[in-house]
Amino acid sequence: MSGPAIALHGGAGNLELSSDSRFQISTELDRVLKLAVGRLEAGEAALDVVEFVVSLLEEVPLLNAGIGGALNAHGEIELDAAIMCGRRQLAGSAGALRRVRSPIALARRILEESPHVLLVAEGAEAFAQECGLDLVEPGFFETPQARQRWQEATPSDHSNTVGAVARDRAGNLAAATSTGGTTRKHTGRIGDSPIIGAGTYADQHAAISCTGDGECFQRAVSAYDFAARLNYKADSPELAAHAVLEKVHTLGGTGGLIALTNNSRPIALYNTKHMAHATWSEGLDFRIAF
Amino acid sequence: MSGPAIALHGGAGNLELSSDSRFQISTELDRVLKLAVGRLEAGEAALDVVEFVVSLLEEVPLLNAGIGGALNAHGEIELDAAIMCGRRQLAGSAGALRRVRSPIALARRILEESPHVLLVAEGAEAFAQECGLDLVEPGFFETPQARQRWQEATPSDHSNTVGAVARDRAGNLAAATSTGGTTRKHTGRIGDSPIIGAGTYADQHAAISCTGDGECFQRAVSAYDFAARLNYKADSPELAAHAVLEKVHTLGGTGGLIALTNNSRPIALYNTKHMAHATWSEGLDFRIAF
Repeated sequence: MSGPAIALHGGAGNLELSSDSRFQISTELDRVLKLAVGRLEAGEAALDVVEFVVSLLEEVPLLNAGIGGALNAHGEIELDAAIMCGRRQLAGSAGALRRVRSPIALARRILEESPHVLLVAEGAEAFAQECGLDLVEPGFFETPQARQRWQEATPSDHSNTVGAVARDRAGNLAAATSTGGTTRKHTGRIGDSPIIGAGTYADQHAAISCTGDGECFQRAVSAYDFAARLNYKADSPELAAHAVLEKVHTLGGTGGLIALTNNSRPIALYNTKHMAHATWSEGLDFRIAF
Repeated sequence: MSGPAIALHGGAGNLELSSDSRFQISTELDRVLKLAVGRLEAGEAALDVVEFVVSLLEEVPLLNAGIGGALNAHGEIELDAAIMCGRRQLAGSAGALRRVRSPIALARRILEESPHVLLVAEGAEAFAQECGLDLVEPGFFETPQARQRWQEATPSDHSNTVGAVARDRAGNLAAATSTGGTTRKHTGRIGDSPIIGAGTYADQHAAISCTGDGECFQRAVSAYDFAARLNYKADSPELAAHAVLEKVHTLGGTGGLIALTNNSRPIALYNTKHMAHATWSEGLDFRIAF
């Protein structure tokens, strides 16, 4: 099977979620998935679809990306995102953003218009401005829920990063991830999400977006490890996904991932209590789950 | 063979180097290599030795790391570094630093004392201050040679990043890299050097430090790719190193790498005009070369 397919996630986490939160997140994932499916069915490119999906999820206040991003040690919000095109193996990513309304839109501009892969902090915001992207005041992203999580101080809370992987009708793959990082992280901390090979990766054979204890995913180079296991060991996608999370576990972390290969159904796997996710492949799957 | 061994590099590049520059760089590499060999022979840990080596190379004005770092598009210097311990698979890295005297010392502190892997920009400098590391005025790092290269505007000049890989008497591996990045890079640009898996990586089987067109090394996830080829394909270190640089080449880049495995001689390979490097393994090698 190699028709269009997509998976998206709203983050892996271990905090208990109220049934109300689960319902709201499921409703949002369902809405976004249906829009994405429409675009894939219409023949839109995987790269455009994952950017579109993640840009919508960034605007969902319940999720930890864009609006609703986690507050750092100083009670400020610093956002990270990455996108990668499997066909061209081009990537764009940005970290420690305080004023860029859509981090994933900036990552896409970096992919298309910059000679660089990763821009951070004020330099990244200057590039956003050069591109004419929307800048906002830092307070724009703050929600009462994120402020409350910060006050209750759950330092390892990494819930609700968002991401998407897609395969388009031409068989091309793409991956995108966006996050506010961990609550009470040090200022300037960059997790796995915007690091190509750690939290986000795509090539001609695989696309993957991770969520979880970002430092463990960085040390394990998890996203590329998934691709390497497929390409070098001929692991099945399921086996590779299990092995990637097992490695994260041996490094002391938990998390989850969504992935696609050029001929697999969407994969969604996690070793946390939950990972909000939604998957679709033409004629085979349509699923919203925690 | 599994005794102590080390490789260090002063960067891969395509710009012509005067014989005077070559002589001066060779002299510095010889000096640093001998100090490192003394420490390895005395039983010092690989992690301490690579930090020591890179901290010395950061102070060599002719090399593009610390003092002598390349100037960015605004004529400022932003420094990046990473270090990784193979045994514990712990990593620390920092990017877009303007005031931290030794970026590699900060990376080591992040490895040892922070829950994070990567800190950037002002947040990273705040952490350096919390650790009591030396902060300096940004002008401290500027050299007439770096200013001249900037004025002559060679945007893709990535010469003279520095790095080291070592294997200690206990068989443990470590890798470290430090750089000023590319001349005329955008502010906030982070290359491969401080990205675990891209420019720097170590585990129980391999240690590697890369230099070259950083964006291509990021897209190829080169440092981890070297380790994955050894671990999953049973490539020889030489074959893996060739394949890694070949992949960078297919993405449009050039560069080089130094690497060690738990039973190999030091490897130094590049597809640029030159890569200043020095290698030693107990009883077998002692070599300074371009």
